[in-house]
Amino acid sequence: MAEIRMRGFAKLTSIDEALNQFFASVHVGKLQSEDILIKASLGRVLAKDIICPRDVPPFNRSAMDGYAVKAEDVFGASETNPVILSVKGISSVGKPSSEILGRGEVMRIATGAPMPEGADAVVMVEFTEATGPDKVEVYRPVAPSENISSRGEDVRKGQLILRAGTFIKPQDMGIMAALGLTKVEVTKRPVVAVLSTGNELVDLGSEVPPGKIVDSNRVTLLAMAEASGAEPADLGIVPDERDVIIKRMREGLASADLILVSGGTSVGERDLLPDVVNSLGRPGVIVHGIAMRPGRPTALCAVEGKPIILLPGFPVAAMIAYEIFAESIILRMLGASTRLWERPTVRAEALRRVPSSLGNRSFVRVIVMKKGGRYVFELLRATGSGIISSMVKANGMLIIPENKEGVEEGEAAEVILLRPVEEGKE
Amino acid sequence: MAEIRMRGFAKLTSIDEALNQFFASVHVGKLQSEDILIKASLGRVLAKDIICPRDVPPFNRSAMDGYAVKAEDVFGASETNPVILSVKGISSVGKPSSEILGRGEVMRIATGAPMPEGADAVVMVEFTEATGPDKVEVYRPVAPSENISSRGEDVRKGQLILRAGTFIKPQDMGIMAALGLTKVEVTKRPVVAVLSTGNELVDLGSEVPPGKIVDSNRVTLLAMAEASGAEPADLGIVPDERDVIIKRMREGLASADLILVSGGTSVGERDLLPDVVNSLGRPGVIVHGIAMRPGRPTALCAVEGKPIILLPGFPVAAMIAYEIFAESIILRMLGASTRLWERPTVRAEALRRVPSSLGNRSFVRVIVMKKGGRYVFELLRATGSGIISSMVKANGMLIIPENKEGVEEGEAAEVILLRPVEEGKE
Repeated sequence: MAEIRMRGFAKLTSIDEALNQFFASVHVGKLQSEDILIKASLGRVLAKDIICPRDVPPFNRSAMDGYAVKAEDVFGASETNPVILSVKGISSVGKPSSEILGRGEVMRIATGAPMPEGADAVVMVEFTEATGPDKVEVYRPVAPSENISSRGEDVRKGQLILRAGTFIKPQDMGIMAALGLTKVEVTKRPVVAVLSTGNELVDLGSEVPPGKIVDSNRVTLLAMAEASGAEPADLGIVPDERDVIIKRMREGLASADLILVSGGTSVGERDLLPDVVNSLGRPGVIVHGIAMRPGRPTALCAVEGKPIILLPGFPVAAMIAYEIFAESIILRMLGASTRLWERPTVRAEALRRVPSSLGNRSFVRVIVMKKGGRYVFELLRATGSGIISSMVKANGMLIIPENKEGVEEGEAAEVILLRPVEEGKE
Repeated sequence: MAEIRMRGFAKLTSIDEALNQFFASVHVGKLQSEDILIKASLGRVLAKDIICPRDVPPFNRSAMDGYAVKAEDVFGASETNPVILSVKGISSVGKPSSEILGRGEVMRIATGAPMPEGADAVVMVEFTEATGPDKVEVYRPVAPSENISSRGEDVRKGQLILRAGTFIKPQDMGIMAALGLTKVEVTKRPVVAVLSTGNELVDLGSEVPPGKIVDSNRVTLLAMAEASGAEPADLGIVPDERDVIIKRMREGLASADLILVSGGTSVGERDLLPDVVNSLGRPGVIVHGIAMRPGRPTALCAVEGKPIILLPGFPVAAMIAYEIFAESIILRMLGASTRLWERPTVRAEALRRVPSSLGNRSFVRVIVMKKGGRYVFELLRATGSGIISSMVKANGMLIIPENKEGVEEGEAAEVILLRPVEEGKE
């Protein structure tokens, strides 16, 4: 690979082909799983299907406050013609009554309380009036089963509740708790180590001498790894010195499941990373030079089965290459069937032509607006891949596929919303 | 309020009116702010606008590896007619050269390195060939400014970068780091205390005796509070006993910014909460009984300026009332202009009529599918508000406004996606 430096890429590989080549060369499988408390499982990934261990609810219970009745006893009841019934005790929540109701008998019942034997429906308290210590007037009929949560109505024993690969959301935690589970088996979080290379970089919080810049990529990439469901690990900054890079990479290989390096991956003099990776072990660099804009200098590599992604130094390019390549690998390691947070898309019309380069997949930052009830978008003016502010100002990302040359004025396209469209931004 | 128990709600208040009454009675303002490290700011809310403290990049720099040139020197250069120029040193990243270029002189330059004086463009290395130790052939012309990132091109000093009220995303952390900031002022996380009431409830992980159920609401609500950007605080379970509830509520009032109570808020015998809240202090219950389905028994309250929301005991109703009321309060306390994660919506057609009750806002769990390239949805069969599984099985939520009675077969509506639409679910 040495000769590629100061030469440019002889050929570019498409994103899909690059992913194919990478996953054909390296086995990237689901990591081991671990048992954790359900309380602490928000945002983790289910390692196994959750199968219902028992009926929920475990008994027939009232869905309303009122009276447990035999439906046939209140047939035809009305405001003008109420039915008068005898009240035989109370079924409270956690304190079921063992009484059995006969004809003409009802039981006071609270929401969630077990249904007494002999009753088959509940009349809501709103449609009754207590007329004595053990008498009640009922003003409405009910159908059999009305206002009852039947045993197993919510979920039945043996039913598939949640699929392996699901990112656990609050409602999933609730249903697992309701099933009586305490712990849940989740996939371990992949450890994603992030290294920045470049003589020009200084650490966040340090003094910035002339000609130097703060290393912002590492901050962004560590946060992105966290937001993808991984465990970020900070490998710091290394200068453009082969030995130092090798040493730090070895540290990363010893502890991380995936290593991300930003900078030093293009074809310049200081772009030592492809050579370094090849010297660390096999297979080394698998694909280098991707037909994408931005993100061209990205390289997908592996050393003894451990994936390494060389990301461009330009912030926007690094973020896009992260999403395309690093996140795919993280999701595989998690065994996740979706991303943690799917981003909304809107169908919007181009206010002006958006150019793109045929043969490359283009990731174009746009501004999406609402205009007369429909969505429209336009190119953000400054979109060089070094323009980190474009990622802040843009609220949308338009992906133009390889076989398409730009989006025409007035053409509609799906735009991924990075931030919400501001109201009144007409 | 005592007489409301076992009576039903005399009147229901619309969601909008309930929010108006609540916010008119209680001042819910932005909490204090705190300075935290940018590294630790993911998902926090900016307390103040971020204004750019200086130009980024702070100097003109090369956007490519190649040669810094005077554009006029390479005008007309081509493969067949290269221009031969003298190489005068190297500008490396972090090691700028102090040489000044004259006519016919170029400087080798790396991506990110400062532009030398006298040069106004960069020729990419791909379009050059070194022909001697200090000679280079250039095969293409460049325009002035080409392949240069100009000082301030990314962001200019004084420019508004990020607005107060923004939930901080990875790219925001990157730009703040690039600006040389180390810390950021964010709003404190509101402490949201969650209490469950009910004799029938046992704690997650405990043995479940007959007639009892696991308290799943607290698990869900604590996780929802975390996912909204708040700091959850667990107040545990209390039985339906006035004195115990009061004592625990006082503990919550002493430490939390918002208290959520689930259960005991309807009009049954055990529904002690409205009375308890009124006895704790003023104004007590502000609105009780909301024209929404599910979620009707919700009450909005406050005690000496501290908001308390009484949520229904039914899991699905509690979740929906949380989103409508509790999250609005949390976002106000955070000073957040949006939710942390906006949920995507799709426009989908009803496969069958979906009924709803006029005068109530209905929150209907639906299944969204892709059919012949368009989205369709249908009602999830079991949608009682006690049906926690409906929140797990449903991948969409349809909101039918108060003034609309159902959605007709074939009618299109916006559906909020709770989970992604599975591919191939045709």
